[in-house]
Amino acid sequence: MEFFLVGFDPDSEVFRVHEGGKLALRSTLPLTDRHSLSLAYTPGVAEVCTAIAADVALARDYTWRSRLVAVVSDGTAVLGLGNIGAAAALPVMEGKAALFSEFAGLNAVPIVLSTTDVDEIVATVERIAPSFGGINLEDISAPRCFEVEMRLRERLDIPVFHDDQHGTAIVVLAALRNAATVTGRSLGELRVVVSGAGAAGVACTRILLAAGIGDIAVADSKGVLHPGREDLSPVKAALAADTNRARLTGSLDDALVDADVFLGLSAGRVDEEAVRRMASGAIVFALANPTPEVEPAVAHRYAAVVATGRSDYPNQINNVLAFPGIFAGAFDADARQITENMKLAAATAIGEVVAGSLSPDYIVPTPFDPRVGPAVRAAVAEQARRDGVTRS
Amino acid sequence: MEFFLVGFDPDSEVFRVHEGGKLALRSTLPLTDRHSLSLAYTPGVAEVCTAIAADVALARDYTWRSRLVAVVSDGTAVLGLGNIGAAAALPVMEGKAALFSEFAGLNAVPIVLSTTDVDEIVATVERIAPSFGGINLEDISAPRCFEVEMRLRERLDIPVFHDDQHGTAIVVLAALRNAATVTGRSLGELRVVVSGAGAAGVACTRILLAAGIGDIAVADSKGVLHPGREDLSPVKAALAADTNRARLTGSLDDALVDADVFLGLSAGRVDEEAVRRMASGAIVFALANPTPEVEPAVAHRYAAVVATGRSDYPNQINNVLAFPGIFAGAFDADARQITENMKLAAATAIGEVVAGSLSPDYIVPTPFDPRVGPAVRAAVAEQARRDGVTRS
Repeated sequence: MEFFLVGFDPDSEVFRVHEGGKLALRSTLPLTDRHSLSLAYTPGVAEVCTAIAADVALARDYTWRSRLVAVVSDGTAVLGLGNIGAAAALPVMEGKAALFSEFAGLNAVPIVLSTTDVDEIVATVERIAPSFGGINLEDISAPRCFEVEMRLRERLDIPVFHDDQHGTAIVVLAALRNAATVTGRSLGELRVVVSGAGAAGVACTRILLAAGIGDIAVADSKGVLHPGREDLSPVKAALAADTNRARLTGSLDDALVDADVFLGLSAGRVDEEAVRRMASGAIVFALANPTPEVEPAVAHRYAAVVATGRSDYPNQINNVLAFPGIFAGAFDADARQITENMKLAAATAIGEVVAGSLSPDYIVPTPFDPRVGPAVRAAVAEQARRDGVTRS
Repeated sequence: MEFFLVGFDPDSEVFRVHEGGKLALRSTLPLTDRHSLSLAYTPGVAEVCTAIAADVALARDYTWRSRLVAVVSDGTAVLGLGNIGAAAALPVMEGKAALFSEFAGLNAVPIVLSTTDVDEIVATVERIAPSFGGINLEDISAPRCFEVEMRLRERLDIPVFHDDQHGTAIVVLAALRNAATVTGRSLGELRVVVSGAGAAGVACTRILLAAGIGDIAVADSKGVLHPGREDLSPVKAALAADTNRARLTGSLDDALVDADVFLGLSAGRVDEEAVRRMASGAIVFALANPTPEVEPAVAHRYAAVVATGRSDYPNQINNVLAFPGIFAGAFDADARQITENMKLAAATAIGEVVAGSLSPDYIVPTPFDPRVGPAVRAAVAEQARRDGVTRS
């Protein structure tokens, strides 16, 4: 956290590039004379309105919403900064919108909310939903994020995706599958220990289970989740029931003894000694940002593969590998939702991009690999059609 | 109405220009390498978030919201089409957003709502308000639009402006002042008859009263509003109390006898005979769209000045003369609201642009007159400072 607590220096590069914000919205038509105005606005536009009123499916072809994502946050779990509120969250949401534009050519609008009440968030997003083609939930704290996503998925007929959960999970699965290959193992053989039972921890655990991982133990700040614990939220209790085949009951460090994989998704730390006691050829994903749970240089003394969330080390686990292509593929297929299979297909596509050139320091593509977006997009669209969730 | 009921022809020019919608949102920063990504997104963006969390006023400088308008509609009173719903209203709101961009360099995002309930509209806009610098309400039917605007103005600390009311009123006042000049009269001498007591009728009447007009009678479909009518909504009853000094009680046609000005803001018609009986040197603003209440050629037989809402006749009363500069000026001044004085200042600025070259066929600037936007913007910003409604 101390990383962030720098002073406000308007002359620094980061503040200079943020001046006036990071997004610009423009007309795609020139409105420079009466004829163009009469087409784009009254009276011409009335013909388009009438057509959509008669057949709402035409909104896909004649409005911008079919390629428009709302990046929605209540500002409660922003980066590592926590609950900083709507206005302070806006620069992150603008950045996210910029990434949708730059990496997938989509339009995305940040919507930050002045409420943190689950009912109000759901009602608000539901009421503005006709403006958008998809909803990307962002930086909403657990466990509220699970209910917000679940209820919006039930109520809306457009893709709803909580990136902190599923974006992370998709890229982790892609990277872990390649890490297993590099170390000569299959996913099914691996015993994984997940640190963190928040949005990312829950979603990563779920996607790894769906992908056939051997065994997973999940630890929160009080130790490994198991059915005997009486302090668990409903989400954690469900996770305890579905994980921990080894019936561990101790601390995170205890669980790491002989584990194949450490997956760090919390702000916690892991001692060098705990990493040393992992199985040989261990895989360490220390994804806490900006300070990994264990320093990569330390982890490398014992682990065969090390990944972080940072751009200044190899093997960066970055959601931008997933979310632009996920939405672009869902929009291409006119999908009503993003299914579990579509997420698995995205993970497979990301991993396959580098499958021919794997090494311990190259288990995932870099964020700027131009092959990733199109591969994810095509795989997601194809899977949407296979799953029968397309509208047209 | 029959004008609009054409078939859906995807090969027509109007549908071709609407393909894929009319707006594009882009990053203002290139995100092409790790350095730019680390500034615009994590980890650099955290410094900006922290600064805004400590001092929310910094959101003005470091997010896009300070120059961002939400164009909000529930789709209940769209053009002349009526209640066509959120999806069908979206092309109009996109067009409006495009006009904000083209005429004032502002960003604007269409927000169409799946509710028509006043409480829900107010709550929804209030909750998304931290995302925006101003709220432009659009095509919300009367009388709900009055309450929505009033409640949002009370609750929000950013400009809220219902364009169908105030945009129209501002341009009407500008044009009417110049029409009075052209015909050798002052505003205070004029007796005005307004046809229509909806959003535009109410707001035009209010701004004309504030500008010192002589007398105004307002008619709805049942005749002139007067205190003796028992069928009036609260908004119309208030209007009846503040207007009609001549104590008229009859029909619109009756009221037009010897009137100086006809201001048509409804879908109704006016007979040639009624126009003939107006005072000599009459002023006719037949603003119904697309079909004016009286054909301009017919009105010209009796009236000295004729204006319409259409681009194919002289003297087009077009809101685009007002709303881009209104918001740009309010943003320049960091105004917390748009005051009545700011609206009057906008009207004066619009009228003055053509004051040196007035003629019966040239009482308002054309929509593309490049002098208008900057003039309105400067006048509105200056008035905001004078009214003490600026934040900084």
